[in-house]
Amino acid sequence: MSDTRNDTSAAHEENREETPGKAPGGTGGSTGIDPAVRADLTRLRESIDNIDAAVVHMLAERFKCTQQVGVLKAEHQLPPADPDREARQIARLRELAESARLDPAFAEKLLNFIIAEVIRHHETIADGAR
Amino acid sequence: MSDTRNDTSAAHEENREETPGKAPGGTGGSTGIDPAVRADLTRLRESIDNIDAAVVHMLAERFKCTQQVGVLKAEHQLPPADPDREARQIARLRELAESARLDPAFAEKLLNFIIAEVIRHHETIADGAR
Repeated sequence: MSDTRNDTSAAHEENREETPGKAPGGTGGSTGIDPAVRADLTRLRESIDNIDAAVVHMLAERFKCTQQVGVLKAEHQLPPADPDREARQIARLRELAESARLDPAFAEKLLNFIIAEVIRHHETIADGAR
Repeated sequence: MSDTRNDTSAAHEENREETPGKAPGGTGGSTGIDPAVRADLTRLRESIDNIDAAVVHMLAERFKCTQQVGVLKAEHQLPPADPDREARQIARLRELAESARLDPAFAEKLLNFIIAEVIRHHETIADGAR
């Protein structure tokens, strides 16, 4: 799979960011971004790409867990949604976000986003079990 | 911060999931969920909580990186959004999701969700720099 360090279009991308006339007074004039700035951008983007890969793999594991929860719920006729559990998850995650200096409102939105997908999966599993 | 293993409401929650009359034919009759099922649910939920904590901390790091990108962009008058970079990120993440057996459509929606927040941050930084 492509990695920005080996991706020959990465340098291309850094040039594309500066269009003459679009960045008055921008560093590097008409030839593009200053090489030191480009190096910083590349370093930061590689870190972002690493983090995204890690998050994807962890969410894959999360959905494996929630799929197993869904199967258990379907086998024992438990409801797909659990508002009490969700309220506690949100409170806990907001607290963790605060200590990690992540916007707790964003953490809550993210969790709701993921939970909505989980509920969709659980309803599909429950439908299949009937 | 609360952890479901030490959270006395965790057992409470498992009981709340089964309301008499709401789960006809459910395991355990009117006294609640079968202890073995409850144990499985608890184990899975503890894993989910661990994963969520890990994801929150990694996203905290991701936003630190994107904040630095935003500062660089503001200092050098680069545009907040970079559609070419984003298209490549999405393609790469969809590929990683496939290999991790995560729904690539979900991975794409998630990345767009995060990127929208990043762009919002970058515009705030750029506004502050003017």
